[in-house]
Amino acid sequence: MLVKHYTDEPAKTVEEGAKETTIRWLIAEPEGAPNFYMRLLEIGQDGCTPHHAHEWEHEVFILEGEGKLVGDGKSHSLTAGDAVFVPGNEVHHFESSGRQTMKMLCLIPAKK
Amino acid sequence: MLVKHYTDEPAKTVEEGAKETTIRWLIAEPEGAPNFYMRLLEIGQDGCTPHHAHEWEHEVFILEGEGKLVGDGKSHSLTAGDAVFVPGNEVHHFESSGRQTMKMLCLIPAKK
Repeated sequence: MLVKHYTDEPAKTVEEGAKETTIRWLIAEPEGAPNFYMRLLEIGQDGCTPHHAHEWEHEVFILEGEGKLVGDGKSHSLTAGDAVFVPGNEVHHFESSGRQTMKMLCLIPAKK
Repeated sequence: MLVKHYTDEPAKTVEEGAKETTIRWLIAEPEGAPNFYMRLLEIGQDGCTPHHAHEWEHEVFILEGEGKLVGDGKSHSLTAGDAVFVPGNEVHHFESSGRQTMKMLCLIPAKK
């Protein structure tokens, strides 16, 4: 068993279409995770993740802040305590709309 | 895409060796999750989850409160912001040690 605080992992800048966004990899291959990986994203004021689609799904939990999930012609408000499921191949991005940084967990399946 | 607040799902009492513990299933088979499931557990004052082992792993994130992860001769303090990996087949239980309810996300792989 392994316990770490999320701040023990470095916050790496997300490039390629993102704005004011960092990612910390909390549980993944190096920790021995066989099936799915846990990351923590922080989206600063007026920041966003890339608008894109990919084969794998996202399972997200909003920890702090407020924002939006924007898809193909759809938009959902997000607030702390929200759980989000984005199926594979759906176009999407997350954005922070509050003054506070939006913190969220974002889990993805392991590489096969 | 699907967004829900965690309180939209009912808190079901965890039986079988647990104390003062409820579980809410946030993202699972009914939501179309193909690979892993997200649940939110609340462990009340002096409560705990069952002391057990099983084949599947846990990926946990502590949202609120304080507690302990107890394993086979080991114990780790837990606080908000901690990420926890419990590999498959390791004996473990979680307990709340503060006055506040300990809230945590607990993710497991999908049934094959």
